[in-house]
Amino acid sequence: MASLALLTTSCTENSKNEVKAIFPKGEKGPADNFTGSAWNIGLVANDTTYNTIVGNVYFEPGATSNWHTHPAGQILVITDGVGYHQIKGQPRQTIRKGDVVKCPPNVMHWHGASADTGMQQMYVLPKTEKGLVTWLQPVTDEEYNNATNK
Amino acid sequence: MASLALLTTSCTENSKNEVKAIFPKGEKGPADNFTGSAWNIGLVANDTTYNTIVGNVYFEPGATSNWHTHPAGQILVITDGVGYHQIKGQPRQTIRKGDVVKCPPNVMHWHGASADTGMQQMYVLPKTEKGLVTWLQPVTDEEYNNATNK
Repeated sequence: MASLALLTTSCTENSKNEVKAIFPKGEKGPADNFTGSAWNIGLVANDTTYNTIVGNVYFEPGATSNWHTHPAGQILVITDGVGYHQIKGQPRQTIRKGDVVKCPPNVMHWHGASADTGMQQMYVLPKTEKGLVTWLQPVTDEEYNNATNK
Repeated sequence: MASLALLTTSCTENSKNEVKAIFPKGEKGPADNFTGSAWNIGLVANDTTYNTIVGNVYFEPGATSNWHTHPAGQILVITDGVGYHQIKGQPRQTIRKGDVVKCPPNVMHWHGASADTGMQQMYVLPKTEKGLVTWLQPVTDEEYNNATNK
C-alpha cells in the first residue's frame, strides 16, 4: 500500500480560486514540458503486471501542459477545480470536477487549468508496454484563450 | 467528454461520518455481490482502444464487497473516507483518503467501508481483454472485524 500523507485545506481556507487536495502536491513539472506551475505525483508506477500508470497533476491557475501524444492514449479524471482539454483539430473543452475525458492513441492534446481556478486531475496511462508520452511544443496564448479555435 | 452532474456537500453538512462526492452516487450494487449499501458509477466503459475500465464506488459505513478476483488485477484509489482492503492470506489493511492499493491478477480480495465512516474509491481495471471480475462468497463478520486474521 502506498500510504500517502495528506494535504488538508479547511473550509475557511477554501476560497473560490483554490482546489482541494487528495494527494500530496509532488514535484513541479519541468519548464520544458509545462507553462506555469504544474505539480505531479505518481500514484501507480509502471510495471509488467498492470502495464498502467496512475498519477495526479495539480495545475495552478493558468498552468498548462505542452502539446503531447501518448502511444496508447490517456484517461483524465477531474477531481476538483476547472480547466481545459484540447484534442488537436477539435475545439477547446472546459473540464470540471467530476468530468472524465479521453485522448486516443497518438493524438495530440494539451490540458491545464483555467486562468482563475486551478485544477486537480488524475491521469491513467493504459498499455504502457506501447510507451508513455512524446512531448511537443508549448500551447500558444491564442490556443489557450480561444475556445473555438481548432 | 462524460459531463457528469455533481453531488455537492457543504462544509456545514460534512460531519465526521460523511464523505465528499466527486461523482454522482450511481446505482446500488446487487445484494448478491455486496453486503450493505455500495453505490457504483461507471466513468470509463470498456472498449478495445484503452482496454481499461474506471469507475467509482461509494461504500456506506459497514458496506463491503464480497470476496472476488480480477483476471488482470485491480487498482483502487481512495478519494475520501476510511475503509478496509484485504488480500486473501494477508491481514486486513485500513485504507484512507489518498491511499492507493493494488490487487494482483487472480488473487482474492474484498474492500469496503469502516463501520463508522463511509469510503469513496475509484477503481481501475486494466487489460480488460482478459476479463473483468469473478464474484465469490460474502465477507464474514469475523473477517470484517478482525484486522489480524488472515
